[in-house]
Amino acid sequence: MEQTLTQLLKTDYNIIFKDISLLEQAFTHSSYVNEHRHFELQDNERLEFLGDAVLELEVSDYLYRHFQDLPEGKLTKLRSTIVREDSLAMFAKECGFDQFVKLGKGEENSNGRSRSSLLCDLFEAFLGALYLDQGAKKSKEFIYQVVVAKIETGAFSHEMDHKTTLQEVLQKNGDILIEYHLIAEEGPAHARIFHVEVCGGGTPLGKGSGKSKKVAEQKAAEAALANILAEES
Amino acid sequence: MEQTLTQLLKTDYNIIFKDISLLEQAFTHSSYVNEHRHFELQDNERLEFLGDAVLELEVSDYLYRHFQDLPEGKLTKLRSTIVREDSLAMFAKECGFDQFVKLGKGEENSNGRSRSSLLCDLFEAFLGALYLDQGAKKSKEFIYQVVVAKIETGAFSHEMDHKTTLQEVLQKNGDILIEYHLIAEEGPAHARIFHVEVCGGGTPLGKGSGKSKKVAEQKAAEAALANILAEES
Repeated sequence: MEQTLTQLLKTDYNIIFKDISLLEQAFTHSSYVNEHRHFELQDNERLEFLGDAVLELEVSDYLYRHFQDLPEGKLTKLRSTIVREDSLAMFAKECGFDQFVKLGKGEENSNGRSRSSLLCDLFEAFLGALYLDQGAKKSKEFIYQVVVAKIETGAFSHEMDHKTTLQEVLQKNGDILIEYHLIAEEGPAHARIFHVEVCGGGTPLGKGSGKSKKVAEQKAAEAALANILAEES
Repeated sequence: MEQTLTQLLKTDYNIIFKDISLLEQAFTHSSYVNEHRHFELQDNERLEFLGDAVLELEVSDYLYRHFQDLPEGKLTKLRSTIVREDSLAMFAKECGFDQFVKLGKGEENSNGRSRSSLLCDLFEAFLGALYLDQGAKKSKEFIYQVVVAKIETGAFSHEMDHKTTLQEVLQKNGDILIEYHLIAEEGPAHARIFHVEVCGGGTPLGKGSGKSKKVAEQKAAEAALANILAEES
């Protein structure tokens, strides 16, 4: 038996909509409304307008608090990577939302169900509906479960270059030698874990671990930045 | 005796910051930090990053709920008018914030204190600090007192063309005659009030009043749209 959307939301995210028509609207593409003139619901475009802003605030708030060493320019760049079309389309797919969106025949036949812009809009519209139906706290929880969890697995880490940031912070008052030392490695070859320590001018600043030396170095730099910040404040 | 920033916030907005350094950071332009290397605070750019998103959500939420007849494209256009640089600079000035921002000498001498982009950033940074220090509810209250109140006085009404929207709604299923009738006018010549009623196909749809026939017609169209929506739901 196929799972319905309401079952999926309850099972995976503990979300139960009060106003089910709001949920239906979020999953109604304009092409469906255009082909069904007597359909009683609006399409999801107005909800998308709202959901875009809901997501932007929660992601901004998370980035602001979590990356205290990043300047505004890097925060903005990171945010735009996280909320851009193909990222949001990915989230919509990972949530399994693509199977539930109502499309017109033309849109369905031209493969609209897997089109990035349509899935991005769908994800934002769902967030708009969730915010209206369940409030800011619940929509924040959902965003943390789906979007922030992804950030924390390092999905956007190509945008988060802690090593460069650490270098900028340490060298703002002149040159200082920064070294990354491999201090240990463990586990079998297919699941090796590397432990790295970063030193500035010979002083240990932070440690990090990961499945590659590169990841471990980034983690060590991130820890060093957190330690420096804690000392400064 | 000159009023301090904390006095102004308390008197005009009933806001008392818990973390005064956050407020100071919001009012510190990068040019000041650059000229005072040993100044302990950061500039306001990271707070601006956050405040931008705080404002965007509250304005979006207000527009979504208040203009239920506006399609997504018009909501987006209206929002961008409200949150654009010169609007936010206007809000910063109206709040009296310009007199309190810390600038470097170069910026001060080149009239930075009245520069639109600097005041816009200042307003956003203040919202970021307010959100962090006082939470979403209090920052929403401030946005309603300053920004939404301005929307409701009709400051952005050139972007809110209710007459066009009403025409689109009424004529989506074919032509219908729309007429605006002046039903009354009152008051002395310098403070005249006009009362207008709009009819669709001869049926009265809504009434509106204003200081000019144009404003009264827009209000009548807005009322008609609200009535139509109430009937549909």
